[in-house]
Amino acid sequence: MAGHVTYREVKATILDRIKGGAWPPGALLPSEVELAAEFGTARATVSRAMRDLVEDGLVERKRKAGTRVRKMPLRQARLDIPLVRVEVEDQGAVYRYALVASHVGAAPDWLRARMGLPGGGEVRHILCMHFADGQPYQFEDRWISLDSAPDARAADFTAEGPNEWLVRQVPYSNVEISFSATAADAEQAQHLGCALGDALFRVERQTSWDGRELTFVRLTYHRGYRMTARY
Amino acid sequence: MAGHVTYREVKATILDRIKGGAWPPGALLPSEVELAAEFGTARATVSRAMRDLVEDGLVERKRKAGTRVRKMPLRQARLDIPLVRVEVEDQGAVYRYALVASHVGAAPDWLRARMGLPGGGEVRHILCMHFADGQPYQFEDRWISLDSAPDARAADFTAEGPNEWLVRQVPYSNVEISFSATAADAEQAQHLGCALGDALFRVERQTSWDGRELTFVRLTYHRGYRMTARY
Repeated sequence: MAGHVTYREVKATILDRIKGGAWPPGALLPSEVELAAEFGTARATVSRAMRDLVEDGLVERKRKAGTRVRKMPLRQARLDIPLVRVEVEDQGAVYRYALVASHVGAAPDWLRARMGLPGGGEVRHILCMHFADGQPYQFEDRWISLDSAPDARAADFTAEGPNEWLVRQVPYSNVEISFSATAADAEQAQHLGCALGDALFRVERQTSWDGRELTFVRLTYHRGYRMTARY
Repeated sequence: MAGHVTYREVKATILDRIKGGAWPPGALLPSEVELAAEFGTARATVSRAMRDLVEDGLVERKRKAGTRVRKMPLRQARLDIPLVRVEVEDQGAVYRYALVASHVGAAPDWLRARMGLPGGGEVRHILCMHFADGQPYQFEDRWISLDSAPDARAADFTAEGPNEWLVRQVPYSNVEISFSATAADAEQAQHLGCALGDALFRVERQTSWDGRELTFVRLTYHRGYRMTARY
């Protein structure tokens, strides 16, 4: 390379060598000092290219062992998990919330098993709907442990959904999230305005805070919903 | 706090203040030096707690403007996107691949629109199956642009799937991924061993490399599949 060498050019050259097999999977790369000398550029320029390649999951750095080509490129997608209100508003649509049903009672066995709740614990069960421009967007079926969140017993969910309330109450730390498909049952079909058995995208989320299980929610989306990310 | 103060204790105290409303959404936090003095600990200990809180999406740092409580906690899930072979093997199952069909031809109109391919471009279309312990796991329906990846024309996909081949050929940089639910069509039902219309989890992925659209794939998973992440 002649003249001023950018980090993009350095990165492209390294990529060509990885792609071309000059530096195969598992290969040890020359040091940044050696590469800077070869490319006639500053070490900082090589460093920046390397950081990009590490973030792209193509090479990995090991202490004292140098930088190697990954045996298998690491692929990770980052998914934003916004409040449904924010998701709808970001699409330029008008958001509306509606409470469907709410009651307090003993946790059913499947929920106790799933959340790891102690026997005798009470929960608040909330069913509610989220609309975008008047069309059904998401059906929310949520359980909140009253042992972990006693304030949820008397909280008013008629004007505001439990997700907004929880975010304000608890800067919760641990979430397990799963994505799957489900056939619409009668309740989902009624609220989402689709046919019984229609294929719906479903998110299940279990949230714990400070080591205590707080809430489990099943979110079912309108037919044709798509969750998108880039990486 | 008395005695040796850990960063976890500092973090817990800051969280209590955020949660308790002493530091409401948008509030400016005291400087790390001030907090270190208050807690009787080293500034490095406060720094470590703050880094955790930034990563948890609860506070945000702005240059010169200090650290503030986020108006809305930032939630992001990181999803690993492994090769299906690696995903199956990580579950302790035996992976098997099978090619179903392959041909080369003109890109259909919907694909040209979707991928933004020029007119007249040829593609290789591959249908294949991935099994876990002999059970259908994933049905892959893939299109590769031969303008972008001419080597794909003659590549042999009988023993190895096109995803493994592509990962070796192209350390690709840009992926758009989407998750949705779909009702099984006749082809999917046949290969995945389910009934017509069953709700299936579907991943669609479009990959470009160096500004050129390379491949579009629809992955449909066996009934009951669930993709899980934690954050």
